[in-house]
Amino acid sequence: MRPNELMQRLSLQHPIIQAPMAGGIDTPLLVSTVGERGGIGFIGAAYLSPDRLSSAVAEVRSLTERPFGVNLFGPVFRPGLPADIGRAIAAVTPAYASLGLQDPTGPGVPDDLFDARLEVALNSGATALSFILSPPTDTAVDETRRRGMTLIGTATTVAEGRHLEELGVDAVVAQGAEAGGHRGTFAADVSLSLVGTMALVPQMVDALEIPVIAAGGIMDGRGIAAALALGAQAVQMGTVFLATEESGADATYTRSVLAAADGDPVVTTVFTGKPARAIRNRFIVEIEDAGEAAVLPFPYQGELTGPIRSAAKRQHQAGYQAHWAGQGVGMARSLSTRDLMSRLVEETDEAIRRLSGR
Amino acid sequence: MRPNELMQRLSLQHPIIQAPMAGGIDTPLLVSTVGERGGIGFIGAAYLSPDRLSSAVAEVRSLTERPFGVNLFGPVFRPGLPADIGRAIAAVTPAYASLGLQDPTGPGVPDDLFDARLEVALNSGATALSFILSPPTDTAVDETRRRGMTLIGTATTVAEGRHLEELGVDAVVAQGAEAGGHRGTFAADVSLSLVGTMALVPQMVDALEIPVIAAGGIMDGRGIAAALALGAQAVQMGTVFLATEESGADATYTRSVLAAADGDPVVTTVFTGKPARAIRNRFIVEIEDAGEAAVLPFPYQGELTGPIRSAAKRQHQAGYQAHWAGQGVGMARSLSTRDLMSRLVEETDEAIRRLSGR
Repeated sequence: MRPNELMQRLSLQHPIIQAPMAGGIDTPLLVSTVGERGGIGFIGAAYLSPDRLSSAVAEVRSLTERPFGVNLFGPVFRPGLPADIGRAIAAVTPAYASLGLQDPTGPGVPDDLFDARLEVALNSGATALSFILSPPTDTAVDETRRRGMTLIGTATTVAEGRHLEELGVDAVVAQGAEAGGHRGTFAADVSLSLVGTMALVPQMVDALEIPVIAAGGIMDGRGIAAALALGAQAVQMGTVFLATEESGADATYTRSVLAAADGDPVVTTVFTGKPARAIRNRFIVEIEDAGEAAVLPFPYQGELTGPIRSAAKRQHQAGYQAHWAGQGVGMARSLSTRDLMSRLVEETDEAIRRLSGR
Repeated sequence: MRPNELMQRLSLQHPIIQAPMAGGIDTPLLVSTVGERGGIGFIGAAYLSPDRLSSAVAEVRSLTERPFGVNLFGPVFRPGLPADIGRAIAAVTPAYASLGLQDPTGPGVPDDLFDARLEVALNSGATALSFILSPPTDTAVDETRRRGMTLIGTATTVAEGRHLEELGVDAVVAQGAEAGGHRGTFAADVSLSLVGTMALVPQMVDALEIPVIAAGGIMDGRGIAAALALGAQAVQMGTVFLATEESGADATYTRSVLAAADGDPVVTTVFTGKPARAIRNRFIVEIEDAGEAAVLPFPYQGELTGPIRSAAKRQHQAGYQAHWAGQGVGMARSLSTRDLMSRLVEETDEAIRRLSGR
């Protein structure tokens, strides 16, 4: 297809962005393969130490000379640890016990590594830097501009998109309600910020001057063609890469993904304290049944559930892991990223040909 | 465009279905104008007595010889009136007072007019009969088939779509989470059935043999082209017609629609007891703050809030009306239905031309 502004800027042959999938899913091999096949892959740095982010970047760089991106969880307000954490601890205790872990005592207080990660990202040689959970900081705006990097914000409503544009980002991901993983919502309550991709993208395109990237529910060439018809300049896809050969998802995660249906991924705060979409499992049901007061604010809930998720992963227990996925999960495919990219391109062409009656 | 199976069946020149909008919005003039312009309009019969449905049908018939459809709220389980209705009454009492109404005593128990409405619909000369809230009854399946009418069900998940296909409907509306008005959900809790249009439509198309109609967030030709790219054979649009000249929405409703943004329409049970998407206002906030126990089950909550909605309409009080709308509401336009239909067709062509690079 004829390259648009964003495609030119990111040197894209195809308008396909592989979404950051922190937690080891977006392996350097996945990121580099997407790049090699004419898209761009993102390294999700949310849970990486600055050193591990450096290593991931170096590995991607050793695999490809094509562009790649880095994604950061922006700095968010950190409330103090609530005085009463008893209900939250009580709620997770059965999960700790079931996995053979010692009873939890309370969440640790994680270091705030934002500045250190940003420093690595800015000097990584990445073509693009994207933010989720909060708008980019002033430093990020200034330093990406100075370096000629493309700065991308994530918005879940038109109002958030406008705010990001005013801050000076180069493009906005319009993250529809369908999307898997963490919600980018930063301006209003999540209950007022779950706008579906079909409604969000064209309203964002109308409201902004800068390019809009569509995310949420896009799983094949039909979805890519649809997003382009809505006015997006590219799509950001995460769930579709979960079951690829290059994905870091383990067999338990892959099985969950391939077995899930459209209604299974739900938005929940039980894993980290921030709303995120994951495949409904035993842990989500247990903690949600315990009520809102049983969930600590971000980042403490993440610290409290970290040992559960790690143990569950080691023990291949799907019920206690965070299997992030979007509502398009029923269209997930198990194949190589190389083949997937080829098919996405072919399917997009086919969908457009079918539409135009050729 | 080249007519597909559904377009042929419904004699559509354009793949545009005007969604039923019960409560006086889908006037006979709106329904007939959509038909005259090559789409098909639906009369929402949910709140009409059989006699008033007959009159509406006769009026549409006097205005056009083109096809039209009738939509019914399918029969749903009616629980007995809960023993404790005190909280629900207490919650709505301030609204009654604010509008100058006498204190509420309790909801009436509405007659079940389903069979009578179905009888009228079957003998109305309508080309299509669609159901929402529940699957069609056996009688509806048998009698529409005998008459050669097209029977359409409404599904909010792939599982619901499969169920409807097995029952024998001719087409399914895939109602994405973006859609305004009542949710079609009948199989699972609504919290597991808010799948966005972008994710729902292609999964439904893959799962079913019968034609799929896309609904939710589609507001212009970009949306129509997108829905067709996803594999839908037609779109069902409601919100886009709210502010047309032929719409029955009064000035207060129209103002709400034209002022609303993407995050404003929320799914709530406060008006009828069934989940439905409406523009967030004072009444929604007041009753939701009172908690779930302050909402009676369908149809009692509708009876309890009926006097509020009627009085608020007479008094032009937006805060106490049910202003149904979808998440695409920011794209609503105030013009004649005739002009709207022309623009939708032009915009669709333009979106397809732009996509195919011609």
